[in-house]
Amino acid sequence: MDHVRLSESGTSVIILDQSLLPGEEKYLELKTLEEMVEAIKKLQVRGAPAIGIFAGYALAALSKQQCRPQPIRSCCGASGTSDEVFLQEIQFQGDALKGARPTAVNLAWAVDRVIKAVRVEMFRARQEDPLRLNANAGARRLAEAAVREAKAIHEEDIQMCRSIAQYGLEEVQKICAANDHEGPIGILTHCNAGPLATSEYGTALGPILLGAEQGVEFRVFADETRPLLQGARLTTYELQKAGVDVTLICDNMAASVMRTGAVQAVFVGCDRVAANGDTANKIGTFGVAILAKHFGIPFYVLGPSSSIDLECASGSDIPIEERDPEEIKSKYYEKPMAPEEVKCFNPAFDVTDAELISGIITEKGVCRYPYKESLAVQIGNE
Amino acid sequence: MDHVRLSESGTSVIILDQSLLPGEEKYLELKTLEEMVEAIKKLQVRGAPAIGIFAGYALAALSKQQCRPQPIRSCCGASGTSDEVFLQEIQFQGDALKGARPTAVNLAWAVDRVIKAVRVEMFRARQEDPLRLNANAGARRLAEAAVREAKAIHEEDIQMCRSIAQYGLEEVQKICAANDHEGPIGILTHCNAGPLATSEYGTALGPILLGAEQGVEFRVFADETRPLLQGARLTTYELQKAGVDVTLICDNMAASVMRTGAVQAVFVGCDRVAANGDTANKIGTFGVAILAKHFGIPFYVLGPSSSIDLECASGSDIPIEERDPEEIKSKYYEKPMAPEEVKCFNPAFDVTDAELISGIITEKGVCRYPYKESLAVQIGNE
Repeated sequence: MDHVRLSESGTSVIILDQSLLPGEEKYLELKTLEEMVEAIKKLQVRGAPAIGIFAGYALAALSKQQCRPQPIRSCCGASGTSDEVFLQEIQFQGDALKGARPTAVNLAWAVDRVIKAVRVEMFRARQEDPLRLNANAGARRLAEAAVREAKAIHEEDIQMCRSIAQYGLEEVQKICAANDHEGPIGILTHCNAGPLATSEYGTALGPILLGAEQGVEFRVFADETRPLLQGARLTTYELQKAGVDVTLICDNMAASVMRTGAVQAVFVGCDRVAANGDTANKIGTFGVAILAKHFGIPFYVLGPSSSIDLECASGSDIPIEERDPEEIKSKYYEKPMAPEEVKCFNPAFDVTDAELISGIITEKGVCRYPYKESLAVQIGNE
Repeated sequence: MDHVRLSESGTSVIILDQSLLPGEEKYLELKTLEEMVEAIKKLQVRGAPAIGIFAGYALAALSKQQCRPQPIRSCCGASGTSDEVFLQEIQFQGDALKGARPTAVNLAWAVDRVIKAVRVEMFRARQEDPLRLNANAGARRLAEAAVREAKAIHEEDIQMCRSIAQYGLEEVQKICAANDHEGPIGILTHCNAGPLATSEYGTALGPILLGAEQGVEFRVFADETRPLLQGARLTTYELQKAGVDVTLICDNMAASVMRTGAVQAVFVGCDRVAANGDTANKIGTFGVAILAKHFGIPFYVLGPSSSIDLECASGSDIPIEERDPEEIKSKYYEKPMAPEEVKCFNPAFDVTDAELISGIITEKGVCRYPYKESLAVQIGNE
């Protein structure tokens, strides 16, 4: 599912408008910086890695526009074609994109990478021309550097997700073989850590999507994931698109499903993994992990190794954002479903204790408890 | 909260329209049989005991109408004031009420009780008049019998709920004392088993409401209870009305709340308790019980002894109703929140294993594991 891509001409970005899912499947062609900033703000593109990929392509497309005889639009009032003006322009654009969601680490990281690639290309051009006969690389060459870097960011994400998917698939197949499990592999998942949030395979959904390509049969139970319903809105949409057997349940039905024996493993994504393996992820993940332990079902966390934060000793060091009570009381509803004045507790994330996690699967392999050692070794091997 | 009652004149029933909660607090005065049948069908009155109480008052009010010089309305086309006509009339009315929700055991039970009381009064009148000078008790006397019986049904429910509340309150106070717990008593509850579903105290909320009257400080966490949101719509409304500190959470937040130490006990209602103590209750209850066990928090089931079904050996003998997938995908929402064609699993109830239950509290006392003996003894002591 190529939900974020550069257009044929390379001067615009095409995205699937995620804010309309699952009701409407509409692709947007974004040409101006303003449209691109709005797309981030309106959650038309979402998921940390996906936003990074989008930002790379956005800068690439805007750079390509500078190669035309007349730039479509000069964002910072600069004009001309000299490298310095080009750089000024792309820095202005990068800052605007970063400002669309200041807390998104991947967004800033991708913007900085593309700008750095442009700088490197400028430097190279100067090196190639020591006599300073033509100190400029030229907009075309710099834009090509931006496009190359954006594509590299995307390609690296695909490779990383594919690697996570492969490790996850092998792991669950091993478990099924060890238990003489026959028939479809039952997976329960919480929230959304699929391609829409990343690229191609996603993280928690990676083993399922990769397996489906290889003819491995899965049967997935997707928690709807209150209050923002990412499971209902996005996970079921993605799996259904990929032809995977998926059943939507309310979060409070997971225990009933597990009891039937229909779940061979739980796969969830992660927002941040502490040095001891404690894992912050969407609210509700912790409860699912406790249920999985009760039923003896292995519980896996899947994510890029960049989610592992060795600076953070344990889960108690991870701050948990509390969000607007209206997300629980009135969001998405026709009318409020709770008394107006009633108090709510609405944490966005919870922390799953390392002891409840059977394995943390990154693009580098499977880490096992005790995680303090296995994570350090994996990160150290970089 | 007198949400179902006979009017001052006794010829109509006044109910709080529960279908409008929590947004609107509107009382309805129901005068005709048609209005009363509609109130049940439209869920303006709900909860098994509450429907029973309502049906009793409905028949009482309609009976009182027969005492007027001209009955307001003859439902079955009969006229006159003879006892037989009165009985025909009330039987017709009773059948109509039963037909409004054929599966509601309490509804049929209450209707039959009131009609039996009228028959007994007719029989008494005949006994008092062996010479058959006046074989009729008269509409006034029969209507009084109906009113008496309806009030008795209500009063018995109040007494039963108060008794459950007392046992529950003592139990949780004992636990807090044993653990040297100070400050408000934290209770987590799931779904709604409060006064709106019964009378005055409710079952699971009984200890809290009774305690509040006695100055015991509680802090309640109410699971919203997807998909029908009885916790968000009704439990928070009831507790707030009673001045109890209540916090609404999504079902998947219970583990995060329990981890903080803010929950001293879990209180839930029950739909049916098997002979071994396995308990069917609203979907999600089972998961909460597993979480409570993980955190070492006592988990209590509260309900009338009539919920205990000794004919049913264990939870596997309790059939679980599966409901419309649209309850998950689109009910209450502005627009559907999942792809139209996606499969759902939507069980209305789940079964909590007896081993997870710290106590089953009825109006007769607290039963403890192993329940096969303690429940049989309690029921046997009737």
